[in-house]
Amino acid sequence: MLACLDLEGVLVPEIWIAFAEKTGIEKLKLTTRDIPDYDELMQGRLKILNENNLKLSDIQEVIQQIKPLEGANDFLNWLRTEFQVIILSDTFYEFAGPLMAQLGYPTLFCNYLIADESGKIVSYRLRQKDGKTKAIKAFQSLNFKCIAAGDSYNDTGMIQQAEGGIFFCPPDSILDEFPQYKVTRNYEELKQAFLETRADIP
Amino acid sequence: MLACLDLEGVLVPEIWIAFAEKTGIEKLKLTTRDIPDYDELMQGRLKILNENNLKLSDIQEVIQQIKPLEGANDFLNWLRTEFQVIILSDTFYEFAGPLMAQLGYPTLFCNYLIADESGKIVSYRLRQKDGKTKAIKAFQSLNFKCIAAGDSYNDTGMIQQAEGGIFFCPPDSILDEFPQYKVTRNYEELKQAFLETRADIP
Repeated sequence: MLACLDLEGVLVPEIWIAFAEKTGIEKLKLTTRDIPDYDELMQGRLKILNENNLKLSDIQEVIQQIKPLEGANDFLNWLRTEFQVIILSDTFYEFAGPLMAQLGYPTLFCNYLIADESGKIVSYRLRQKDGKTKAIKAFQSLNFKCIAAGDSYNDTGMIQQAEGGIFFCPPDSILDEFPQYKVTRNYEELKQAFLETRADIP
Repeated sequence: MLACLDLEGVLVPEIWIAFAEKTGIEKLKLTTRDIPDYDELMQGRLKILNENNLKLSDIQEVIQQIKPLEGANDFLNWLRTEFQVIILSDTFYEFAGPLMAQLGYPTLFCNYLIADESGKIVSYRLRQKDGKTKAIKAFQSLNFKCIAAGDSYNDTGMIQQAEGGIFFCPPDSILDEFPQYKVTRNYEELKQAFLETRADIP
């Protein structure tokens, strides 16, 4: 059985927010809550990075100082002994890299940043629309059953598509909308939820 | 880009053969070269295990003594820094488990053994026919490009389906049939082949 985990908010902090805090660039704290159009948000972020003359290598150096959430490594190491784990994230490989190294390189499906020869980030490329849900469908086409866990609205697609779904530290607003899923608030609860959810899947 | 690796013969020894050597049960060295019908071969293997009163836990204890091939861990750790790695194998989770622990739990897609309550292995379940090739197709449907590497005939499907294919220590007979793929004989060559193959994929 596969365990499909969101990355930010589940194993590591929200990368853009942690990056904004490390660099002191307040404007990088804006999220889709502030700017609902994702492309507009991303173009704004890239503009800010370039205005601050932050090349990809500078960014990666800053991200290297960001640590996984406390207990994330122990949880993930346990999960890998019980399930085949794939991280499904909307982040970018170039950002996640330094964090994946700290997590022991679990397999990550996410998106790409495009840098020019000087290392300036010029653009980004989403692998596909609604990539998390499509990944679950692809695994199911290989006769895998999946348990998906995440914290946010962009996880609700995969959570609904999977045979089992779990929320981890979600905002209250999601709970009203999706009351049918287990809600966990720490790694011990998340562990138990994975085991119970697996036991419930025929 | 994804790196899809065969397991036995690439990262670890052939498990049935290593198991036969550890236990001294010569008959378990038979392969599809001796008994072409896979189900007949597997039923024979299960019969031998049960005749020798080997429960799943006994088998796993023996397999725990089998080590990855020399250099496999270093190679795999390097590969994980450069690619998202998924191991595509025809083995069984219950056999591979002790070896995956030694390899740092890379994500493994393979098959299942079915044990009864006493731990006796009663049957096996293939996840699907030609699972390696189908996995590559599923990843491609997620807009991933794949480089597949393996040593044997059961890898030729995924090697042909992937955007790039590499043989690692293959039998000569395969080379006559598939002369178009890079052939590597040690991990340093395999590393180079992964890098060169990636550079050639548009």
